[in-house]
Amino acid sequence: MSEAAQTLEGWYCLHDFRSIDWTAWKTLTSDERQAAIHEFLSLIEKWQETEDKKEGSHAIYTIVGQKADIMFMILRPTMEELNEIETALNKTKLAEYLVPTYSYVSIVELSNYLPSDGSDPYENPEVRRRLFPILPKTKHICFYPMDKRRQGNDNWYMLPMEERRNLMRAHGMTGRKYAGKVVQIITGSVGFDDYEWGVTLFSDDALQFKKLVYEMRFDEVSARYGEFGSFFVGNRLSTEQVSSFLHV
Amino acid sequence: MSEAAQTLEGWYCLHDFRSIDWTAWKTLTSDERQAAIHEFLSLIEKWQETEDKKEGSHAIYTIVGQKADIMFMILRPTMEELNEIETALNKTKLAEYLVPTYSYVSIVELSNYLPSDGSDPYENPEVRRRLFPILPKTKHICFYPMDKRRQGNDNWYMLPMEERRNLMRAHGMTGRKYAGKVVQIITGSVGFDDYEWGVTLFSDDALQFKKLVYEMRFDEVSARYGEFGSFFVGNRLSTEQVSSFLHV
Amino acid sequence: MSEAAQTLEGWYCLHDFRSIDWTAWKTLTSDERQAAIHEFLSLIEKWQETEDKKEGSHAIYTIVGQKADIMFMILRPTMEELNEIETALNKTKLAEYLVPTYSYVSIVELSNYLPSDGSDPYENPEVRRRLFPILPKTKHICFYPMDKRRQGNDNWYMLPMEERRNLMRAHGMTGRKYAGKVVQIITGSVGFDDYEWGVTLFSDDALQFKKLVYEMRFDEVSARYGEFGSFFVGNRLSTEQVSSFLHV
Amino acid sequence: MSEAAQTLEGWYCLHDFRSIDWTAWKTLTSDERQAAIHEFLSLIEKWQETEDKKEGSHAIYTIVGQKADIMFMILRPTMEELNEIETALNKTKLAEYLVPTYSYVSIVELSNYLPSDGSDPYENPEVRRRLFPILPKTKHICFYPMDKRRQGNDNWYMLPMEERRNLMRAHGMTGRKYAGKVVQIITGSVGFDDYEWGVTLFSDDALQFKKLVYEMRFDEVSARYGEFGSFFVGNRLSTEQVSSFLHV
Amino acid sequence: MSEAAQTLEGWYCLHDFRSIDWTAWKTLTSDERQAAIHEFLSLIEKWQETEDKKEGSHAIYTIVGQKADIMFMILRPTMEELNEIETALNKTKLAEYLVPTYSYVSIVELSNYLPSDGSDPYENPEVRRRLFPILPKTKHICFYPMDKRRQGNDNWYMLPMEERRNLMRAHGMTGRKYAGKVVQIITGSVGFDDYEWGVTLFSDDALQFKKLVYEMRFDEVSARYGEFGSFFVGNRLSTEQVSSFLHV
Repeated sequence: MSEAAQTLEGWYCLHDFRSIDWTAWKTLTSDERQAAIHEFLSLIEKWQETEDKKEGSHAIYTIVGQKADIMFMILRPTMEELNEIETALNKTKLAEYLVPTYSYVSIVELSNYLPSDGSDPYENPEVRRRLFPILPKTKHICFYPMDKRRQGNDNWYMLPMEERRNLMRAHGMTGRKYAGKVVQIITGSVGFDDYEWGVTLFSDDALQFKKLVYEMRFDEVSARYGEFGSFFVGNRLSTEQVSSFLHV
Repeated sequence: MSEAAQTLEGWYCLHDFRSIDWTAWKTLTSDERQAAIHEFLSLIEKWQETEDKKEGSHAIYTIVGQKADIMFMILRPTMEELNEIETALNKTKLAEYLVPTYSYVSIVELSNYLPSDGSDPYENPEVRRRLFPILPKTKHICFYPMDKRRQGNDNWYMLPMEERRNLMRAHGMTGRKYAGKVVQIITGSVGFDDYEWGVTLFSDDALQFKKLVYEMRFDEVSARYGEFGSFFVGNRLSTEQVSSFLHV
Repeated sequence: MSEAAQTLEGWYCLHDFRSIDWTAWKTLTSDERQAAIHEFLSLIEKWQETEDKKEGSHAIYTIVGQKADIMFMILRPTMEELNEIETALNKTKLAEYLVPTYSYVSIVELSNYLPSDGSDPYENPEVRRRLFPILPKTKHICFYPMDKRRQGNDNWYMLPMEERRNLMRAHGMTGRKYAGKVVQIITGSVGFDDYEWGVTLFSDDALQFKKLVYEMRFDEVSARYGEFGSFFVGNRLSTEQVSSFLHV
Repeated sequence: MSEAAQTLEGWYCLHDFRSIDWTAWKTLTSDERQAAIHEFLSLIEKWQETEDKKEGSHAIYTIVGQKADIMFMILRPTMEELNEIETALNKTKLAEYLVPTYSYVSIVELSNYLPSDGSDPYENPEVRRRLFPILPKTKHICFYPMDKRRQGNDNWYMLPMEERRNLMRAHGMTGRKYAGKVVQIITGSVGFDDYEWGVTLFSDDALQFKKLVYEMRFDEVSARYGEFGSFFVGNRLSTEQVSSFLHV
Repeated sequence: MSEAAQTLEGWYCLHDFRSIDWTAWKTLTSDERQAAIHEFLSLIEKWQETEDKKEGSHAIYTIVGQKADIMFMILRPTMEELNEIETALNKTKLAEYLVPTYSYVSIVELSNYLPSDGSDPYENPEVRRRLFPILPKTKHICFYPMDKRRQGNDNWYMLPMEERRNLMRAHGMTGRKYAGKVVQIITGSVGFDDYEWGVTLFSDDALQFKKLVYEMRFDEVSARYGEFGSFFVGNRLSTEQVSSFLHV
């Protein structure tokens, strides 16, 4: 039997992707649309108040291509809060014009493949900053879910801990080359959603997503053990841009 | 030829997942919505009467993410009763606003990989309690279907009984670490639905689902032989919460 | 080159699964619904006349779970008749409220892995009874399509005839244990639909489907060579039950 | 590097499958339906004129099961003509009641695994007859797309030309047993659609499709290297039958 | 650890496929349709102005078969511009009758498997011409996404750089045989969409797509390492043809 790595968990996380039904949206009067936008902005304002209190965080991006038009990433301390936010959003006027296209449920995770000094990692401020992150306001976002492969001779979960640690360390070094260019947030989803992890990347230069993911694919841990779901890429939608984005 | 393990079966089980069509629901008058909620609560009341008589059990949870908004888990002595409950639900007013998204048909099962003392297990009160369980009222639920792999050298059904027994025993020991934290109900679905088993986990701490499923993934029985379907995670919806959940 | 087993074929077979659009069905007046039910029962009556003349057979079952609400299994001497029945059903009033969810096209088949005595099997009354069967009226039905695997070292179609015959014989012995409990009808669908065979099981005890399919999964022919599609399980809907089933 | 076989190409080919929305079709008045049928028959008449001039060919079949209700197979010298026919059909009144369910784009192909005598095969009348075929009017049709496998040790595209030629020759001999019973048209779709080939079979006895495809599955070329898509089977819909087929 | 090849990137790229809802389109008055077409042509005119300034490029093709009716390929310097174009298109009147069916997000890429002379490739006019291409106006287009396989012994990302370079060089030689007949544009999509690359082919002879892709399939790099998504093939829709194409 192989040994599971220790993990540290922070905030629960919901990625929620929606398409806009522009045809139906256009059937509203301008006043109705303004009211719907106003209600939606009030909701975001509440989310912002939570973020200001450091009791959660959120990000809103438009998505390029037909997989979705808009994406919400929401971090909260409990599953119940994720559910409440989702239900509150679903009950808004705007939601009548937002068609769900994909979602992902996970929890911010740090994988602890490094030996510990015995202290409580949850007391470590750097660890806390990463487990309970305020999401950056970069121009671009990239999201994809992934699994570690369990297939024939390429079975991650049958590898000895030491080998997994070495493979992860090399992988981490590839990631570190992109420090300052790409912020990466790993969320664990075993038991919560269809893949084992979600990866969310933030950058002001979308090309860095391609450079990073492509370079990592040559790491043995990805080349032999990575199984990837759908990739989503998008551009930041600031509160100020919401009205013009929804203007028809 | 390999030998099939003996199994014990209890109540038949239906997991029924639905999304709420909030847009259509909002077109009803407040009175119509109240009437629909009232009718729905009456149905749940009947389910509760059955549970009080120990002739079945049920659980209602909201689901996080877009896979569903609400989930019903229903246990009954016969397939006919599952079908009747489903049809009765389908005929309610509320069901006009519930879009089916997934379902799973199975039967509560105990896998008997341990040697028997010759007595009739169906007479054993502990066995009966597990075959005909009253579902716990925990804050969270997790459901996923699964198969045992039959692929190349990783073919569960070609292993000798003794090896399967040992692998299952080690797996059971991982599960036992979560005693008191997670209640697990295994339902068999060979011949009934697309995977071979359904796994339903109950806990007051959703994080324990991730910890348990992740740790088990390193057991050889999962690492080499487990194939998993979609994962659903949710929060309990008590009868008292139904009205406010459906309030728009 | 491996040698194909001889097969005997009987009636063509259509499995047709549909969901009921209860919301739309409820918009009809009671009289309109009665008329639609009456028209539907007349159609079944015609099917029954054909069955009484032994020129075909049919079965109607409700399906548990969301895969379908109702399922028709139709046996006829020609593809044209299957098509005509399907089109006639599609043109009924009731069909406006039946949403197609799955179908399967095949032909009743006996696999002739046993050596022959030289006589014409189509003259054998027992063979004829199995090729042109009147479907039993059991309480439950189970249907699933399946393939024989052609993958790496597990390639059924590359095995010598003798090995296939031995594997099938052992498989048949597992099946025979369920004689009197489960009736099995095999239909071949190579060239007609997406899998190579359809398996339809009939029993008064739904649990026997699980016992049979699970035990068979340990036969090498299933363990190494079986690939399974979706499983459907249901309860008999007699002509007498149609009205109350459709009552809203 | 393995060597590609030479291929000869004839007419471009479109298989277009549609379901009929009977519910909507019934909302038309009888006169409107007659007008729609008349317009549709005029379109077929034009197709027939093209066929009479040997500048293309077409076939119309109803499909058994829920995959489609009707299927058009269209042969033309250019991609543009296929597109024009499709668009013209889409603009008809009848098309408002035809829901697209599947389509396949390919080109009639002869695989030239045999050594050549140096003459121009496009001048050979028999070759021309097969590259530019007038489709037969058999009672039944069968269509399926397929790939040659490229997986582990079963990689068709890594085999030496000589081995591929031998496997294809044996395969061809199986096919030849069905001469007079089944007409086979192979269309290549590499670069045009999701599989590499389409196979269309024509016969007056639908059972021959099953016999042929099943027997071929034991040929090594199918057993080890064949990957199959969906199978469609249907009955001829003559121009004379269109009105009664669409009568409601 | 294997070494990633250097890549050069140019314009971001969006492939956007849509079906036309002819039934709804026909419900408009002729004037309304004219207005919608006029608005759409104005949009294309703006795209053309961008292309004339060499700040982007675009192509519009009709697609054969049911996968789509029309396809837009758009090249721009930033992800934001792709998103803006998509949103602007979505807000047009015509878009109310265009049903999204598929899209692909990528970036024009040159794979630099050849040794460099040390100069900045982005200063090389030939390289610039290929990274920032004005799309040709050929009669036909072919698009498909693809991956390099990572499976068992066929794992591209585990090969040494030298071996990958040799395989790519041989592959390039196959491609070069089609110089003058087919223009190929490779776009990288790692981190942007579900496959690793998009391949767009342009030719005045659609048959060359089949010849090229089929011949390449025998190159070891495709035979062992190529995994292909859906293939789309179509005919050029010039601005002049838009009105007649949309005429009903």
